[in-house]
Amino acid sequence: MAILGEMIIGAHSVRGAGTEVFGFNPATREDLQPGFGQATGDDVERACALASEAFDPYRALPLEGRAAFLEMVAEEILAIGPELIERAQLETGLPQARLEGERMRTVTQLRLFAKVVRDGYFMDATIDSALPERAPPRPDLRLRKIGLGPVVVFGASNFPLAFSVAGGDTASALAAGCPVVVKAHSAHPGTSELVGRAVQRAVKACGLPEGVFSMLFGDGRTVGQQLVSHPAIKAVGFTGSRQGGLALLRTAAARPEPIPVYAEMSSVNPVFLLPAAVQAGGATLAQGFVDSLTLGVGQFCTNPGLVFALAGAELDAFVAASAQALGAKGAGTMLTAGIHDAYTKGVTAFNTVDGLQLVAQGTTEGNGCAAQAALYVCDAATYMGNPALEDEVFGPCAVLVRFTDAAQMLQAAEHLHGQLTVTVHAREGDLDLAAKLLPIVERKAGRVLFNGFPTGVEVAHAMVHGGPFPATSDSRTTSVGASAIDRFLRPVCYQNVPGSLLPEALRDDNPLGLSRLQDGTLQVGGGK
Amino acid sequence: MAILGEMIIGAHSVRGAGTEVFGFNPATREDLQPGFGQATGDDVERACALASEAFDPYRALPLEGRAAFLEMVAEEILAIGPELIERAQLETGLPQARLEGERMRTVTQLRLFAKVVRDGYFMDATIDSALPERAPPRPDLRLRKIGLGPVVVFGASNFPLAFSVAGGDTASALAAGCPVVVKAHSAHPGTSELVGRAVQRAVKACGLPEGVFSMLFGDGRTVGQQLVSHPAIKAVGFTGSRQGGLALLRTAAARPEPIPVYAEMSSVNPVFLLPAAVQAGGATLAQGFVDSLTLGVGQFCTNPGLVFALAGAELDAFVAASAQALGAKGAGTMLTAGIHDAYTKGVTAFNTVDGLQLVAQGTTEGNGCAAQAALYVCDAATYMGNPALEDEVFGPCAVLVRFTDAAQMLQAAEHLHGQLTVTVHAREGDLDLAAKLLPIVERKAGRVLFNGFPTGVEVAHAMVHGGPFPATSDSRTTSVGASAIDRFLRPVCYQNVPGSLLPEALRDDNPLGLSRLQDGTLQVGGGK
Repeated sequence: MAILGEMIIGAHSVRGAGTEVFGFNPATREDLQPGFGQATGDDVERACALASEAFDPYRALPLEGRAAFLEMVAEEILAIGPELIERAQLETGLPQARLEGERMRTVTQLRLFAKVVRDGYFMDATIDSALPERAPPRPDLRLRKIGLGPVVVFGASNFPLAFSVAGGDTASALAAGCPVVVKAHSAHPGTSELVGRAVQRAVKACGLPEGVFSMLFGDGRTVGQQLVSHPAIKAVGFTGSRQGGLALLRTAAARPEPIPVYAEMSSVNPVFLLPAAVQAGGATLAQGFVDSLTLGVGQFCTNPGLVFALAGAELDAFVAASAQALGAKGAGTMLTAGIHDAYTKGVTAFNTVDGLQLVAQGTTEGNGCAAQAALYVCDAATYMGNPALEDEVFGPCAVLVRFTDAAQMLQAAEHLHGQLTVTVHAREGDLDLAAKLLPIVERKAGRVLFNGFPTGVEVAHAMVHGGPFPATSDSRTTSVGASAIDRFLRPVCYQNVPGSLLPEALRDDNPLGLSRLQDGTLQVGGGK
Repeated sequence: MAILGEMIIGAHSVRGAGTEVFGFNPATREDLQPGFGQATGDDVERACALASEAFDPYRALPLEGRAAFLEMVAEEILAIGPELIERAQLETGLPQARLEGERMRTVTQLRLFAKVVRDGYFMDATIDSALPERAPPRPDLRLRKIGLGPVVVFGASNFPLAFSVAGGDTASALAAGCPVVVKAHSAHPGTSELVGRAVQRAVKACGLPEGVFSMLFGDGRTVGQQLVSHPAIKAVGFTGSRQGGLALLRTAAARPEPIPVYAEMSSVNPVFLLPAAVQAGGATLAQGFVDSLTLGVGQFCTNPGLVFALAGAELDAFVAASAQALGAKGAGTMLTAGIHDAYTKGVTAFNTVDGLQLVAQGTTEGNGCAAQAALYVCDAATYMGNPALEDEVFGPCAVLVRFTDAAQMLQAAEHLHGQLTVTVHAREGDLDLAAKLLPIVERKAGRVLFNGFPTGVEVAHAMVHGGPFPATSDSRTTSVGASAIDRFLRPVCYQNVPGSLLPEALRDDNPLGLSRLQDGTLQVGGGK
């Protein structure tokens, strides 16, 4: 399938009349063909108007139709074949195996949301029967959740498939019954066009209203802001920088009708190494840490950028082993020149912090966008005195803080900002300290994990990829896993609505076989 | 129990050093004794610090302890006895029977949340078992929801018990495991002190950390803003004016760490009278409408302030019957001098709108804060040309819009802002039109009700007292009913956490007997 440099506006492929932009090969630092025309205000208007028109018919579709559509999107993405992986490789510098894995993750995610739709738990169907004899009589009350309305999704640079055009935000919004307008990320426009066309084909094959999906190219500060400001848009999904997320939050809050922005922004994903775990883990623990730190050139939201441990001979051995493991890590190509520049700037700033010691680096070979991994060590006073050490440096760089005792470590835990993850390495002898740590870190993070590393975010029902500010803009939600659908829903109560007008989910005969809360008691449905 | 003019800061009763304010009797327009000292910045600091300290131990309490505490609050409120009703009557002008009903509603609400806590559905307990054989292996993932942290609740003027110190916001936040700091409404300080002391006694009787509950007096613009700005505070519940709600939203969004504000603000609660219903309903329908319009002197969030109907002889008869019913309604005392002034101003503004015709009024006898009910009629062009006609005039005043045909009525429905409720009166012959109306109005309102009136909000599992902006600041939520607890929760995922450290809700042996989503399938627990 040829890449034409076109946007998707409903059923149409449209070349944007705005400034032309190009994909960029970070390995060669060369532009890629073709050019992509960016959206004008008219394109934004048209995509949003189509999305608005599509909302009622799309959400009225039977659940089975919505689920089949999500599965069709997955099929159409697979049907693109090797061209998708090849183009994504060129645009991102990510290796083939990683991109193939990411494609499978994207497809699995769409299929999970098809199941979520069919199961129908997301609607929180609830019925309180009428009590006509009570004084005063209680009316018949039935609750279900419906979609918020059209959603704008911003593609992320670091997962060109799984957090982009048909990634988790799009899949969960479509599952909720919300049309989606994607603002494609300029770092992988060709990959975006291929996936955008796949979604467009699925819309057509399923006979859905065309406005269910559109995809525009453009700058976040212009097209992105126009989309978030548009009155038809009712929610925003974003994964990216704190600066970018906060700009969208401000715009959304300043609208005549404010709307929710789900921005996943920045996290240093602290790792607590408790004493017995350091002693028992030895070089294996160090290797696991370094592998996680350098995975995907450190370009994961859940990259472990901060390590807390107690000073001592065992920790010195861990640092030495980590230094050795890191020294063997080659410099990997980063996603974009901008990300590479920011990483270089971040590491340079660390080098000027008094008391922060560079203890290990990766190798330096590689092309112009290759990043050299780095590990720093400091004491508690240096850490507590330098709030910037808790700011994310996006890439394979970490700070290890040596504490003199557990109380000092707990105090630093209390001092943490919101995080996507907190990791605890603990063995038998650490459990008392771990029990003290747990209530603190569960206040700080969306996911608390033991004896592993935070990279690798399972697409599952129990996953939380979220967390308190500034990890995200809304700690009440997750952007990965089945619960991601909750972000795009709102409850509606139907009071004494005649049976013939009730939504299927709430009818007495329960034609969808849903599990429902009936008069305060959960009743499991048999499914359809 | 004497009313001393004191605030509650944890276990202490404190007289605020700020400007003294007095309760006000709207029937006599006289100040009530004693004076109440308003909070200083130090009081705010102390209450918030105590709430922060109390959060971990309070949320660690077994569910049964949290439920018993909510029931104890209910008991302590009942134990105040007639003094509470007498004081509330003096401060609000509301009749005894209404206040006794409201007290029962408050108590019922606390008991409902005790049940919600015991049932444990609110935690959304979810388990995805480890799949060690899979490549890559899936870790053990477990999700539960925990409280957001300390919550500030603003007492509302119009429900001095059910939406005030121990009302729905406080009950649902406490149920979620969040300490509460109440900013008492200055319109009923004595009532607030009595209820605040009741909660304080319950905290003590249950042996809870004192910071679980505090209550301050003060102005919204000073003490209210200080509370919402305080870093210990993680969410805000508010019921009141749009202006007040928006001010809190702005402050919360501008914090270094933005926090959610659940502001229930303004709604005109449109009532659609479909043709067959108007014909069949006759004078009974008119009486029902007028009763709802004037209930509680129109001082309900769900007061029906806007009526849409098709022009014709049947509608003329309905208007005539409404005019007659309204003419028999006495002028009731409004809650405060400020509310009365605003109502007078709103009605005066209506009298100057070209094309808006005053067709009926209530009687004028009554004291200085008594409000004369009013009904206006206009055509579609007048309505569509005057956006102010959709702004809430808080009190017993409504606008009826006559449409020439159903298409025009549907267009006006599409034009509505967000609302707490939309009501549809429909008989057999109206069902086709109702079916067209339903998808529109469910996008506009939190509750859609048929063949009744919107006043009267049942405290139940399926209730939604919420809706799109500007009815509330967050359409994803409700402030009445069991789901109100969801506002104060966030999910946490526990990955490979050792069994001995897992929260009870997520242990393999399910000691709480919770219903849980196990590997994607809902499993109903037997309860404890």
